[in-house]
Amino acid sequence: MKFSCEKETLLNLLNIASRAVTGKSSMPLLEGLLLAADADTLTITGYDLSMGIRTTAQVDVVEPGRIVLNSRLFCEIVRKLPQDVVYLETDDKLMTTIKCGRSVFNLMASEADEYPALADVASDKGLSLPQPILKSMIAQTIFSVSDNESKPIHTGCLFEIEGSRLNVVAVDGYRLSVRRETVEGVPGDMKFVVPGASLREIERILGDDDDIVEIFPDSKNILFRIGGTTLITRLIDGEFLNYRAAIPKEFEHEVSADRQELIQCIERVSLIVSEKLKNPIRFHFDGSYVQMSCVTAIGKSYDECPFDGSIENLEIGFNNRYILEALRAAGDEQVKLQLKGALNPMIISPMEGDKYTYLVLPVRLKAND
Amino acid sequence: MKFSCEKETLLNLLNIASRAVTGKSSMPLLEGLLLAADADTLTITGYDLSMGIRTTAQVDVVEPGRIVLNSRLFCEIVRKLPQDVVYLETDDKLMTTIKCGRSVFNLMASEADEYPALADVASDKGLSLPQPILKSMIAQTIFSVSDNESKPIHTGCLFEIEGSRLNVVAVDGYRLSVRRETVEGVPGDMKFVVPGASLREIERILGDDDDIVEIFPDSKNILFRIGGTTLITRLIDGEFLNYRAAIPKEFEHEVSADRQELIQCIERVSLIVSEKLKNPIRFHFDGSYVQMSCVTAIGKSYDECPFDGSIENLEIGFNNRYILEALRAAGDEQVKLQLKGALNPMIISPMEGDKYTYLVLPVRLKAND
Repeated sequence: MKFSCEKETLLNLLNIASRAVTGKSSMPLLEGLLLAADADTLTITGYDLSMGIRTTAQVDVVEPGRIVLNSRLFCEIVRKLPQDVVYLETDDKLMTTIKCGRSVFNLMASEADEYPALADVASDKGLSLPQPILKSMIAQTIFSVSDNESKPIHTGCLFEIEGSRLNVVAVDGYRLSVRRETVEGVPGDMKFVVPGASLREIERILGDDDDIVEIFPDSKNILFRIGGTTLITRLIDGEFLNYRAAIPKEFEHEVSADRQELIQCIERVSLIVSEKLKNPIRFHFDGSYVQMSCVTAIGKSYDECPFDGSIENLEIGFNNRYILEALRAAGDEQVKLQLKGALNPMIISPMEGDKYTYLVLPVRLKAND
Repeated sequence: MKFSCEKETLLNLLNIASRAVTGKSSMPLLEGLLLAADADTLTITGYDLSMGIRTTAQVDVVEPGRIVLNSRLFCEIVRKLPQDVVYLETDDKLMTTIKCGRSVFNLMASEADEYPALADVASDKGLSLPQPILKSMIAQTIFSVSDNESKPIHTGCLFEIEGSRLNVVAVDGYRLSVRRETVEGVPGDMKFVVPGASLREIERILGDDDDIVEIFPDSKNILFRIGGTTLITRLIDGEFLNYRAAIPKEFEHEVSADRQELIQCIERVSLIVSEKLKNPIRFHFDGSYVQMSCVTAIGKSYDECPFDGSIENLEIGFNNRYILEALRAAGDEQVKLQLKGALNPMIISPMEGDKYTYLVLPVRLKAND
């Protein structure tokens, strides 16, 4: 193999593909990146057997070929090279020479034949949407994905397409997050669950301009095409929570509050919460203020936040983190809070429309909380 | 105790004094900050029995008093308070109430009587110099301080005043760094060794404008006065290396090179150096280029850097970190390199003057390095 390209071209490919490489693997080849040069392109692939990222750019190929190079080392080297043309050449014993400016590196590559192939995913039936939309749908649900491996189905986000609606849903047993969008040119209803870890990488790769991302699910895997980059990941099998049934339709109270002010009050009251004991915060809605308080071995904290509307004397306990993460993800200036009673969940949603629904279960308060 | 002040005033004091507090101490009182309110000032003190920081500001005192509050918790609370006036009040059972805006915290304070007193340092005989000068003298030597506790004297920097010259010196057995300045109004010759850990904190506190820092050493301790802040630390006892004798006066070769270019070349060649084996870099000065190379289990690296001057065929090995740290600290665009032979140290110094001298010992190269 022999090719050359600008350092920046190579670095861009490496920064993307290396995201799929695990630091330490029992299969050393998976700590490497597959470099494949053909007629006039270089494709770099990283793969951890669950998720694979493949990205391609035009380069000057003198001799096509395929090798595997250690990802960490190769990335570090390219990052430090001068801004110049990089020449890479591998001899028939796999000794690989990287030259750029006056710098020369000699590294041993590995045989590419053993490198596992990414799953083949048919790309006939799929949907496409602007990258920032998918990016925000992931960002506004991913924090609710479960990290409990005993229920694998909830370690991913449900993608549900019904008519022209795309819903993304995450749930972890204590809270539920739903994000909804209207999308165009959908090939038919479908449902699939994408692993949370893969979605975090997709969120990183997605851009902020209105370029399109194409999504092709099949029965076992899913392919995301983002410009010159393809990410393929397995889907999670199983029965996802019937989330619609979990969201109450009727409430006793509906008020609205300034999101930032709520966040700051909860953050302050949380300062004495012990990471280990996860002491609940007592929310006392009364009149047009919610008084928040917490009592722990460290001391007592108290704050209050005004809201629009009125509730007479409702005391309810919440885990600070679940409320904070939902409020931080919401993004709007003002949010709607819906409540029923001390043992019913609270719903956080936008003032208008149904772009997101955050449901948080309450925590039973003890007398001394 | 009862006082009030702007949140920012309190936060500034906390950010400085808390630097002297150890995270975990066998003496819980030392995880706290001493707050002392008198007629119209609040003084906050942090102390780890080796170094103490005391800082003072004007506040509205209603009732003087002294308490100790947990440093980490108190800092976190004040940081999160709204931008408003903070009211702090302690009752006779040491229950302390912190109020700001609508936020209220109740914390138990500790008795201040047990808090250890900082050493008393006479402030009659000392020197003063602009803060940025001391800051740069620390920054340009501190990296050479030894972390080997078996020779405590070299875990600090030597401050040596002779006539109107102040020299700061650090040495760790593999390299030696000297930084020199002319200072005014010196009360007489003196010598003392300040612990490296304290100097790192002093470097942080020192400002970049031309305000003065006053330094008062006595036989056991030293006091730095920086605006409203006083830092007191013990001095290290012992016989510091006779560093003048360690710096050779005569050289075979004297050349100069672009500092940034040298750094970049060494950084690149170092990419294959193993953190554990600390493989040496081979420097081959020949003609007007220095060829750098390294061979490790990972592979081979090579780079070259031009210099002004000429050396015929000198091969010398160095530990990459020692050369890099000296070059990074030097700061000038161009540096002077002085060499004698493969077994003699290299000296890095400014093109003109003697502001700094960095001496790095060579490493003996093996045939396969």
